[in-house]
Amino acid sequence: MSASIVDPGDPVFDLHRGGKLAVVSTVPLTSREDLSLAYTPGVAQVCEAIAADPALLGDYTWTSHTVAVVTDGSAVLGLGNIGPRAAMPVMEGKAVLFKQFGGVDAVPICLDTQDTEEIISVVTALAPSFGGINLEDISAPRCFEIERRLADALPIPVFHDDQHGTAIVVLAALRNAAALLDRKLGDLRVVVSGAGAAGVAVTRMLVAGGVDPAEVLVCDSRGILHPDRPDLTATKAELAALTNAAGLTGGVVEALRGADVLIGVSGGQIAADAVAAMAPDGVIFALANPTPEVHPQVAARHAAVVATGRSDFPNQINNVLAFPGIFRGALDARAVRITDGMKVAAADAISAVVADSLTADAIVPSPLDPRVAPAVAEAVAEAARRDGVARG
Amino acid sequence: MSASIVDPGDPVFDLHRGGKLAVVSTVPLTSREDLSLAYTPGVAQVCEAIAADPALLGDYTWTSHTVAVVTDGSAVLGLGNIGPRAAMPVMEGKAVLFKQFGGVDAVPICLDTQDTEEIISVVTALAPSFGGINLEDISAPRCFEIERRLADALPIPVFHDDQHGTAIVVLAALRNAAALLDRKLGDLRVVVSGAGAAGVAVTRMLVAGGVDPAEVLVCDSRGILHPDRPDLTATKAELAALTNAAGLTGGVVEALRGADVLIGVSGGQIAADAVAAMAPDGVIFALANPTPEVHPQVAARHAAVVATGRSDFPNQINNVLAFPGIFRGALDARAVRITDGMKVAAADAISAVVADSLTADAIVPSPLDPRVAPAVAEAVAEAARRDGVARG
Repeated sequence: MSASIVDPGDPVFDLHRGGKLAVVSTVPLTSREDLSLAYTPGVAQVCEAIAADPALLGDYTWTSHTVAVVTDGSAVLGLGNIGPRAAMPVMEGKAVLFKQFGGVDAVPICLDTQDTEEIISVVTALAPSFGGINLEDISAPRCFEIERRLADALPIPVFHDDQHGTAIVVLAALRNAAALLDRKLGDLRVVVSGAGAAGVAVTRMLVAGGVDPAEVLVCDSRGILHPDRPDLTATKAELAALTNAAGLTGGVVEALRGADVLIGVSGGQIAADAVAAMAPDGVIFALANPTPEVHPQVAARHAAVVATGRSDFPNQINNVLAFPGIFRGALDARAVRITDGMKVAAADAISAVVADSLTADAIVPSPLDPRVAPAVAEAVAEAARRDGVARG
Repeated sequence: MSASIVDPGDPVFDLHRGGKLAVVSTVPLTSREDLSLAYTPGVAQVCEAIAADPALLGDYTWTSHTVAVVTDGSAVLGLGNIGPRAAMPVMEGKAVLFKQFGGVDAVPICLDTQDTEEIISVVTALAPSFGGINLEDISAPRCFEIERRLADALPIPVFHDDQHGTAIVVLAALRNAAALLDRKLGDLRVVVSGAGAAGVAVTRMLVAGGVDPAEVLVCDSRGILHPDRPDLTATKAELAALTNAAGLTGGVVEALRGADVLIGVSGGQIAADAVAAMAPDGVIFALANPTPEVHPQVAARHAAVVATGRSDFPNQINNVLAFPGIFRGALDARAVRITDGMKVAAADAISAVVADSLTADAIVPSPLDPRVAPAVAEAVAEAARRDGVARG
């Protein structure tokens, strides 16, 4: 079975052999004295100090710089529900990126359960071991409840990257696209195509960042979200109530007529005719991977600024611009949670990195731009203090 | 509160600041091409291969060389039930030792629950993320059930180090003590003082290694284990049935009369008079830390060979001689469990390292002896193949 899938000469498999991570010691351990400090009997003093004052946990253990990257393997990349084992290479990759860009130590945790209650109880039990929880590739709508309940229960940041990472980079990119076009966020008519984890978070983030919710239309596979639709989940019903003040009905074709911005986070294809009906000088972010909702060349015929999720076109909307700096900043501030203010601050910091050199092909920094994570971290830590969620 | 406990100038606290571990990437990530191999889109190929054939998990992720060090903080060192947060410095130290001696990547997992069922379900959920589970500092009798049920449920090695690590090193040490004294293990009368996690495992290990169970007496705080005692837990009742063929009753004083070997794993003090009544040319392992059951100087007056758990006396019985090599060997063989045969092989390998240079002050290698872990790993992997539990 595997023979048909694994090509050992393929550089991808070659690179992945043995995995992509290691745990290393940051203290010396070559003499009996080292051993008596790092382990018994010396370590007992540190244990007793933390037992007497649990606030010392962050000072004297690695939890102050370590997060868990937790998945149940239910919505991995575009591959769907491939389970926790097959998800591990993605979680390791995420951990590599956390370290490379944010200096954050990250441990991949792939859970052998897809039961909402069990995931919540497992992550709650794990929490003393980590300074933060990055939820990853958990399918909607379970991801909403899992994140909300863990964020409420735990005294450390909990962040579902597929929602907020994407949303933060979209806000950053849209801010710069608007600046380039000399438009205000509050004046834009925005269509969000897709109401899964990313679509929900993108909508909320844009509103938090200054887009007028009355002028936003969110579409799922059955059309524009509208309070009269009887088929909405609780989350979609909230979005329907927040958006679409005009009470439009119909599909994405109707939604796009005269719209300024299309943000595709669905994977569903959108016809060229539909985007042709958008207002002039528009913005199209077609973020589905590997096949954007609208091919970027088609999009460019009908919009002034185009972005995708792909690295082989300009303006890649890549979560890596957000999550390393967000956790670095949250950990630096010892934040007890991640607030909307911290997310907006992260978006502002990302857009600011390229604000002085904006072109239609460069509204976001490169994913490898080393200036981004430190700028995001600083902005996020500052916002944490401003929002009263910092302990340090 | 902490001011009275933490002395920031103390080298122990100085060393522990920020913890003792880091996660590092083992692959390059400096170019867009690196990113497209280690993360999207390349990583998807590896995910799909593992989804099609889960046996590839070990080949293409770090699980092949990574274990979880799991505690609930209920029995940490001699400190007792200090909870999961205060236990973290010990678990980090353990992870440092795993790496240093066994080349095993270890992740400390401190659980915010002491409920047996919840610990079992959490560790079961975590299992896809790791190649093995090292249970640590979990109190008896819960540790027995937790280990047994996890070992039965999971397809990876599960090992409670406080039981078996100690037991393996005790067997190694007793083998060499017997060789030095020209005695056979099967001829020795052995008293095990303590029937907690270590006492139970030491007794079973000695029997597996060749000690005659009929000639073993196990004492708990109420005296010699005997089938007629109405106060025994299930585990102690099993030991009572296995040992004490003569049906002796009484306390440790009665047990020690004419005994050849005392193994103290209780923390309870044993009077000099009691050890004076042992047979001549005896062996005393007084392993309680920091205060041995019998002071080594007193023990030396009444026994030919003396060992402790302390680094400041000769013959330190230290688990670090066992666990790094055991997991290294089990991982190398891709063992699905750790058998008694693998444990005995580990003990034999440890004793063999110093077999040619035995003296009464050197019946076990130094904890820092770099020859030990590779020898243990090789012996354990070979035993795994012999016992039919190896997959690689």
